[in-house]
Amino acid sequence: VRIGLDIGGTNTDAVALARDGRELARVRRPSGFGADEVIASAEAAVRESVAQAGARLADVTSIGVGIPGVIDQLSGRVQHAVNLGVVDLHLAERLSRRLTVPVFVENDVKAASLGAWHLLHLTGSAALLNFGTGLAAGVVVEGRLWRGARGTAGEIGHIPVDPTGVVCSCGQAGCLETLASGSAIARMWPTDAALPAVDLFDRADAGDGEAGRVRATFVDGVAQAVRLLALSVDVETVVIGGGLSGLGDRLHGPVLEVFARWAQASPFLASLDLPARTRMLPAGAPVAAVGAALLGSVPEFA
Amino acid sequence: VRIGLDIGGTNTDAVALARDGRELARVRRPSGFGADEVIASAEAAVRESVAQAGARLADVTSIGVGIPGVIDQLSGRVQHAVNLGVVDLHLAERLSRRLTVPVFVENDVKAASLGAWHLLHLTGSAALLNFGTGLAAGVVVEGRLWRGARGTAGEIGHIPVDPTGVVCSCGQAGCLETLASGSAIARMWPTDAALPAVDLFDRADAGDGEAGRVRATFVDGVAQAVRLLALSVDVETVVIGGGLSGLGDRLHGPVLEVFARWAQASPFLASLDLPARTRMLPAGAPVAAVGAALLGSVPEFA
Repeated sequence: VRIGLDIGGTNTDAVALARDGRELARVRRPSGFGADEVIASAEAAVRESVAQAGARLADVTSIGVGIPGVIDQLSGRVQHAVNLGVVDLHLAERLSRRLTVPVFVENDVKAASLGAWHLLHLTGSAALLNFGTGLAAGVVVEGRLWRGARGTAGEIGHIPVDPTGVVCSCGQAGCLETLASGSAIARMWPTDAALPAVDLFDRADAGDGEAGRVRATFVDGVAQAVRLLALSVDVETVVIGGGLSGLGDRLHGPVLEVFARWAQASPFLASLDLPARTRMLPAGAPVAAVGAALLGSVPEFA
Repeated sequence: VRIGLDIGGTNTDAVALARDGRELARVRRPSGFGADEVIASAEAAVRESVAQAGARLADVTSIGVGIPGVIDQLSGRVQHAVNLGVVDLHLAERLSRRLTVPVFVENDVKAASLGAWHLLHLTGSAALLNFGTGLAAGVVVEGRLWRGARGTAGEIGHIPVDPTGVVCSCGQAGCLETLASGSAIARMWPTDAALPAVDLFDRADAGDGEAGRVRATFVDGVAQAVRLLALSVDVETVVIGGGLSGLGDRLHGPVLEVFARWAQASPFLASLDLPARTRMLPAGAPVAAVGAALLGSVPEFA
């Protein structure tokens, strides 16, 4: 049995996978806040998923953890996971000492890209575009994570695409993340609605001109992110994921319309065949937890 | 002995490499125009380089060809090599029939990236940024060409980075190529000078305000191309090559100044360590011919 954890700012999701990849159990618990509580909730999620799978801890061959922040995946150390109140946490060491099972740690978006590759039965190369609060992509080639030379492969959220754009949290101006992310929507469409993106799309559908313009900016940014991946790493498949992928067809449709408009203006763009290469992540697919569960068992690039 | 050809719009360069990679001969001839003449000048360059190396055709184990245009590298077919007057040419088939040696064909920029990786003794991953008439990069990982899923890996010249930019030859607007390429300089700095880029830099150095502004736009575009590669494929080393790399330190210095300005505004950008990862291609390095010579002997990605 392999356990995968997705430790998010709100919830910790766990899956238990059989040796053949079949899902044996799935558990969700609130994430703890601060290093000690993060460890405690992670441990509880592992124990609960093992029990739900009808297994014992001794049957668990590895535990993988996907978590936001800066990860040193060799030592399993996590730094600057702000949403979890974690400044510096030797996650692999502390969790493996409690559970006496090897623990692998990876950035949550990278883990999710590995999970998407497996859950969607992709082949060749693929990227998961994670539209959450921020924007980043994880890249998988032939089932292996492509981290890049410095761990910044797929960090396309911080590529500037508009010299007159607003200043980004990274200090640059006009980053793609300032157009296509949850924080971009929060800035462009201030609202008290529980789901700002859904509110934005609802209001745009209802004919609100400003909502229509903001939605168009956001959708164009999503399409730009796909194009950028095709013209740099050139993965075969781009999966639109992250919290905003919950918009489903309401997002997918308009993105396809942008591709169609581009293809009319540019035979070169048309030749990229972006519509056929772009997929939406199915709602509720536990990609980060599944990808985390695979961490110890998939081959690595040198 | 392995022969590598770099068939450019003006000249065809050939190198003969020993089994250990040592250069045995280097030859330059004018390129023919049109399919038949391209084949004839390529054949002559091969025979001449073999003779200069003190070898016989029977000693040649493979011939590699780097050539602009759309390449089907499996069949060795070349299409749309406009500068060579080539519409459709079964280059590998025709050249190998004349010389009875296996012929491998690759896009010239991709071949040059492989050559740069070897000539500069690079390790890990690297990209050659080719600033010629257009802008494209070739990507090499652990000595292998990274073509991408559709052969568009590194085609960053056609990523738009300015929504208000001019229309590009590809039909899109504001592509990186409209800022950082020979065609961009030709548009922004019309001149009868034999070397427009040198003229531009000379005039900027002499205090011409408009030349200074155009140069700044161009240099900023070059720096953007490096940043874009670091945040997408994340290669360890970016080599600035192509005809415009002949500017040498006159280009390298200002690019480093842009990096320094960016690093001041953005700790994230500073962490990318771009100055240490950016190198200029040494003048006269026959990277495309050397890369072509290696085509049959380096491993390939699946």
